[in-house]
Amino acid sequence: MRPAGPVPSIFETLESEVRGYCRGWPTVFDQARGSHLTDEDGHSYLDFFAGAGSLNYGHNNPVLKRALLDYLERDGITHGLDMSTTAKRRFLETFRDLVLAPRGLPYKVMFPGPTGTNAVEAALKLARKVKKRPQVVSFTNGFHGMSLGSLAVTGNARKRDGAGVPLVHTTPMPFDGYPGADAAEPFAFFEQLLTDEGSGLDHPAAAIVETVQGEGGINVARPEWLRALAELCRRHDMLLIVDDIQMGCGRTGGFFSFEEAGIVPDIVTVSKSISGYGLPMSLCLFREELDIWEPGEHNGTFRGNNPAFVSATAALKAYWADGELEKQTRVKGEHLRAGLLAIAAEHPDAIVAVRGRGLAWGMEMREKDAANRVARRAFDHRFLIETSGPQSEVVKLLPPLTVSAEELDEGLRLLARSVRECL
Amino acid sequence: MRPAGPVPSIFETLESEVRGYCRGWPTVFDQARGSHLTDEDGHSYLDFFAGAGSLNYGHNNPVLKRALLDYLERDGITHGLDMSTTAKRRFLETFRDLVLAPRGLPYKVMFPGPTGTNAVEAALKLARKVKKRPQVVSFTNGFHGMSLGSLAVTGNARKRDGAGVPLVHTTPMPFDGYPGADAAEPFAFFEQLLTDEGSGLDHPAAAIVETVQGEGGINVARPEWLRALAELCRRHDMLLIVDDIQMGCGRTGGFFSFEEAGIVPDIVTVSKSISGYGLPMSLCLFREELDIWEPGEHNGTFRGNNPAFVSATAALKAYWADGELEKQTRVKGEHLRAGLLAIAAEHPDAIVAVRGRGLAWGMEMREKDAANRVARRAFDHRFLIETSGPQSEVVKLLPPLTVSAEELDEGLRLLARSVRECL
Amino acid sequence: MRPAGPVPSIFETLESEVRGYCRGWPTVFDQARGSHLTDEDGHSYLDFFAGAGSLNYGHNNPVLKRALLDYLERDGITHGLDMSTTAKRRFLETFRDLVLAPRGLPYKVMFPGPTGTNAVEAALKLARKVKKRPQVVSFTNGFHGMSLGSLAVTGNARKRDGAGVPLVHTTPMPFDGYPGADAAEPFAFFEQLLTDEGSGLDHPAAAIVETVQGEGGINVARPEWLRALAELCRRHDMLLIVDDIQMGCGRTGGFFSFEEAGIVPDIVTVSKSISGYGLPMSLCLFREELDIWEPGEHNGTFRGNNPAFVSATAALKAYWADGELEKQTRVKGEHLRAGLLAIAAEHPDAIVAVRGRGLAWGMEMREKDAANRVARRAFDHRFLIETSGPQSEVVKLLPPLTVSAEELDEGLRLLARSVRECL
Amino acid sequence: MRPAGPVPSIFETLESEVRGYCRGWPTVFDQARGSHLTDEDGHSYLDFFAGAGSLNYGHNNPVLKRALLDYLERDGITHGLDMSTTAKRRFLETFRDLVLAPRGLPYKVMFPGPTGTNAVEAALKLARKVKKRPQVVSFTNGFHGMSLGSLAVTGNARKRDGAGVPLVHTTPMPFDGYPGADAAEPFAFFEQLLTDEGSGLDHPAAAIVETVQGEGGINVARPEWLRALAELCRRHDMLLIVDDIQMGCGRTGGFFSFEEAGIVPDIVTVSKSISGYGLPMSLCLFREELDIWEPGEHNGTFRGNNPAFVSATAALKAYWADGELEKQTRVKGEHLRAGLLAIAAEHPDAIVAVRGRGLAWGMEMREKDAANRVARRAFDHRFLIETSGPQSEVVKLLPPLTVSAEELDEGLRLLARSVRECL
Repeated sequence: MRPAGPVPSIFETLESEVRGYCRGWPTVFDQARGSHLTDEDGHSYLDFFAGAGSLNYGHNNPVLKRALLDYLERDGITHGLDMSTTAKRRFLETFRDLVLAPRGLPYKVMFPGPTGTNAVEAALKLARKVKKRPQVVSFTNGFHGMSLGSLAVTGNARKRDGAGVPLVHTTPMPFDGYPGADAAEPFAFFEQLLTDEGSGLDHPAAAIVETVQGEGGINVARPEWLRALAELCRRHDMLLIVDDIQMGCGRTGGFFSFEEAGIVPDIVTVSKSISGYGLPMSLCLFREELDIWEPGEHNGTFRGNNPAFVSATAALKAYWADGELEKQTRVKGEHLRAGLLAIAAEHPDAIVAVRGRGLAWGMEMREKDAANRVARRAFDHRFLIETSGPQSEVVKLLPPLTVSAEELDEGLRLLARSVRECL
Repeated sequence: MRPAGPVPSIFETLESEVRGYCRGWPTVFDQARGSHLTDEDGHSYLDFFAGAGSLNYGHNNPVLKRALLDYLERDGITHGLDMSTTAKRRFLETFRDLVLAPRGLPYKVMFPGPTGTNAVEAALKLARKVKKRPQVVSFTNGFHGMSLGSLAVTGNARKRDGAGVPLVHTTPMPFDGYPGADAAEPFAFFEQLLTDEGSGLDHPAAAIVETVQGEGGINVARPEWLRALAELCRRHDMLLIVDDIQMGCGRTGGFFSFEEAGIVPDIVTVSKSISGYGLPMSLCLFREELDIWEPGEHNGTFRGNNPAFVSATAALKAYWADGELEKQTRVKGEHLRAGLLAIAAEHPDAIVAVRGRGLAWGMEMREKDAANRVARRAFDHRFLIETSGPQSEVVKLLPPLTVSAEELDEGLRLLARSVRECL
Repeated sequence: MRPAGPVPSIFETLESEVRGYCRGWPTVFDQARGSHLTDEDGHSYLDFFAGAGSLNYGHNNPVLKRALLDYLERDGITHGLDMSTTAKRRFLETFRDLVLAPRGLPYKVMFPGPTGTNAVEAALKLARKVKKRPQVVSFTNGFHGMSLGSLAVTGNARKRDGAGVPLVHTTPMPFDGYPGADAAEPFAFFEQLLTDEGSGLDHPAAAIVETVQGEGGINVARPEWLRALAELCRRHDMLLIVDDIQMGCGRTGGFFSFEEAGIVPDIVTVSKSISGYGLPMSLCLFREELDIWEPGEHNGTFRGNNPAFVSATAALKAYWADGELEKQTRVKGEHLRAGLLAIAAEHPDAIVAVRGRGLAWGMEMREKDAANRVARRAFDHRFLIETSGPQSEVVKLLPPLTVSAEELDEGLRLLARSVRECL
Repeated sequence: MRPAGPVPSIFETLESEVRGYCRGWPTVFDQARGSHLTDEDGHSYLDFFAGAGSLNYGHNNPVLKRALLDYLERDGITHGLDMSTTAKRRFLETFRDLVLAPRGLPYKVMFPGPTGTNAVEAALKLARKVKKRPQVVSFTNGFHGMSLGSLAVTGNARKRDGAGVPLVHTTPMPFDGYPGADAAEPFAFFEQLLTDEGSGLDHPAAAIVETVQGEGGINVARPEWLRALAELCRRHDMLLIVDDIQMGCGRTGGFFSFEEAGIVPDIVTVSKSISGYGLPMSLCLFREELDIWEPGEHNGTFRGNNPAFVSATAALKAYWADGELEKQTRVKGEHLRAGLLAIAAEHPDAIVAVRGRGLAWGMEMREKDAANRVARRAFDHRFLIETSGPQSEVVKLLPPLTVSAEELDEGLRLLARSVRECL
């Protein structure tokens, strides 16, 4: 007999046990605008999570909403596979004019399916196809997705165990600052493995990296580390894949997170905030000379999510025609950083590190469960923040880039309070 | 120097060579309603392709459109990961009340990411996790997706080659009617492999099958074959996964394509037409006792595509509250079948077979390139049809289930004419 | 406390639990000559097992013994890696003159290490290297060795489980006469998989087969089946590897077991009786144009087991300079067959089948444990026979080819008596 | 047309191109005694190669020869699979009494087949079976054999390429002193990977290591490094496998090369010199509690090479009943080291390093081809030495342990001369 208590919701009775976020945020959300969500009881929550980085322009951004509604109203093509459509053309033109051309990026654009993991799968396939080698190097605490190809380059042991088959053809190398790796010569070991014909490392087709590891704990690679990696790849005939799914679309300041380092990866994956409206969409970008795909060799039903092309186009026009968003992100990021350092200074024993770039920040807690306690406490204050890192030891902050100065301060206040109440 | 000629479009200069459909249908589509698309020049095309089965209720179905616009207008949650939302609850309740409960299906519902391949990846992971065995049996000419897990159970050699790594842990068995397999005892060899401890077939965790192979050439499994397969799985401790991504949501008549056979698969994947509006969405359904997932063990950014939940809910209410759509599909299917047989009778040397179920039909051409010629010719007549099969030897017809009698006849006329002009 | 009883032997206390034969034959053997072994208590055992086919010329054959002792006495090279030695030259010359040349076989000779599994590993490596494809087709109930490459083409589930990793890149096809396979068109399904670009079978580099499956239960492939397989391989650009480790060196009559079928495999593995004296030695033979090895690309410490070259040379000269042994093997084989059929006729309910070629014979028992009981009973009568087959359901007879007529009759008498006493 | 010149030998026309040593030493060897080989022309060669470490007691050692001849003369069992035999019992008793018991080693003894690679395959299988995990860690420049399991833990790229399939389930870690690895904290990175649940290194079942890498270039692990590795394995639930195939049987002084470090590996592989006479034989030793093998789960035709058991027993009795050999090896090793350092001092620019233990020594040359030139020049002086290392950059010296003081000096003189003449 069930113990007396509230009737379990349909989420509990019908949805699979695999559900996650709903457990930490036990309410039913209904509406959202900008930096706020509202639940069914009318409570408003300040959102410093932003769909895990999918809502850089805020929830239901009115400019994008208008474009989307207009498109749907006039019965624009919704589902287009990889047919040519007006909406896709407009997106391609805008992406070329506002993103690729101004940055001198020599990329072809592939629509590999509308999710991040699909873009990663396409990137890995292409790299292996071009180099005719199966091995790919990933980095400690990297996160790239849940389908088998992407999961093999993902570090998290629990998620890897979910594969049900051994994940092979990949070798992890230390990310920038990884304990036990040589800080002064971070690629000395990796390069020796590549140089030494007896090392046992099969020569990789590619290395796949995030410039800032979001799921891995907001681990920030230094620009010089990224440049050294790019150089290493060039020297050793490996393609460099930057997975910019979480950190791209302005999250760290520039449209691509690798711009600051001055590198040009061979392949780039983009998803999450590219549609701007939270609609499924992803891109795989690569140097023109790598475009050796056969027609249809990689496909997918929802590659042509045309409403997403429409909101993506509107987002690019609204936010990337000039440098204002980028500038604002840096200013707000600096403010957020200062606020976090102040909180950390208040709790020198409990808070181990504050790190981030742009508007992606992490606060690492010494005690194992502290970050989760802080996030739960924040929810009580109707403030949504996530944790990340292999042990969920990092409080992770990804406010919308469109967050206002007041919201930013409110978030910092709620965070400080939550931390204080938990320690 | 480029030869003189039309300036290449941005699709040709910027989009990857991997693009496919746009090559066979060289125009730019702009709008769509019901069974028709309109291109930028205002030409209208009759669509018997329906987004490869993603648009069972037609393009921009007005009932679903209304629900979607209302939801977006009122700033309903767009992007929800796996948070609980009002839109998800409504979908779950409706799916339970109109789909699962009336059919007595004992399934939990997982939102594995919004694409079909993600649902297949989740299904394979779960089967291997439950049975603690890596091997999975697939069927000749099966198609399940492009990410590495799904690709390993997909038959097409060209797509497999795209993987860049050997695809392992899977073994193909003959689909119903496969040449060289025993027609009278179709599972005799498979069962012998399972029974014989010296067979060399590592005991599979699961078998994954489509009831009608859409990409494989509209190969139809007989109900008794499916029942025998289900029995075989039960006898030999394997899970039966039905991939109902293309044939589910009413395409063959019933909501699930396996209903007719009277089987209850252990795991079912659903996508394509589940949102009803061409929006990315997918489900992985499984028997409650298989729900051994850890929270977050499989995740994905766009699992909670709430606009898709809204249109999906509207579609279920509009079309699955009674048996009318199912009945209509059977009637229209019978009509389509008769028309195809008439065309085949006209060309007994050129047309090898007509086969299908519900409103999924294929016409196999003897000559290798004939089906492609027919499809190209049909495009000239502004009639959109696809080919399928390992050699693209099958003309494939997937009209919207909402196609009118007049449209059906018009399609048959255009098809007859295209065939005639090609032979 | 150990229960009272005999003090366990050092085999029980120190040797690993993996030991096998010593369990069924619980005595300590000391000496051997021809078809007999003697244990420490002076009991003599008639041996119809012959080192699992490694002692085709009997135990400690005096002709070979003389050559071996002379060689050791004069301090001929014992261990030679792959240096050129007098003993190796003599072997190569003799093998060319008495084996390859008379049969018109166009093979290069590789010494891949002195064990059968090493020869199989080399064969598989070479086939994959030549064809640049990882997939290899094996056959149900095939047995090729215990190292990971060979184990992947071995059928036995218990031995496969011992690998500790999934065994991949191999697919089992039905051996001749396999239940559930099409008897009339045994390669119809296999060829369809090869032809059909949607089959899901990655095109194999090679097929590896035994002409008579020794461990698999003395399953005999018909000459026409082997010819059809050779043809299939030719048509579909696959190499044919015949593993003649157990059935070569005259076991079925001719030096190679495939001679009768009139085929010339691309690669042949030879071991067991090649040294003639039970000394470790193996060969990998292949068509000259396949010899694309780099120097040292496959190596091994005991490739140059020179005493084995000496006894091998002596064996070839003694037994293969004329056709006498081959003729005798056929005569004795016919006699053995007749005797087995007589025993089977006595027990029509218990004995399901008698099958074999040359001096390799099997008697399949209906009841699961009957063959093991017969073999144990035979041991009580000081008669050594083995069982084989996936369930050890087959009594297996491999007398030395040099067995005398009297010994053959004695063996048949002891077998008949053992069967009678067990049923 | 073949250019005029010497008629090619049968080694060139019939033996596979895979042959290696015969290319560097272009003569035909005929006889051997102690530290010398004689070719067909009667020339005598001083052997500081010793069958790549298989002839620690010299060629055709008279004590072992006597035992072997006696055994063969009296028709002792030659081929025994894993039957119990008198010869095996004597070996087991002697191995227990002279090797295991005095050292307090708690091992069971497995006869996995008579070659080193077979012992390694057995060790890897057992480790994976015990820990139920596929991953194994190997070390840079390790060498463990040519069958697929062993090759996957071998570093050499050229040999790995020979596999024809990707080699998976293994990850290389830096051997002691590896460039780019942290010298002060050699296991810091490895341990971090093991500790960090986000590292991406699937938890290994075992680490496999050589104490001195023979093929890898005579790289010597410090005792403290080995102890730290053993500790690491214990802390992180991994088995430690020491591959003592080349460095065991007294090569570095003690019977096992790991004795000096004071560690007790979980699994040990032994081969090469165990038979003492260059006969194929190998052992896999493991802690009693790991002996979870099923009977026959790993097998092999030549496991019971009884003549090898006889010579092995004689070798143990002659050389391991007291500490004399071990003492002599250290004395001679010290002498060899001094001689090498003197040579190196003469050529400070050309010789980069001298390193070794016991009677395994290497001299690393700066210039890429210098070591090969030295070895070829030594052959001209009838002095046999090998090169090793990933680029064959190391002159490798493995004289028989029974080498006389005069032979040792003669070898040093010939080496000094060869070096001088090459630089």
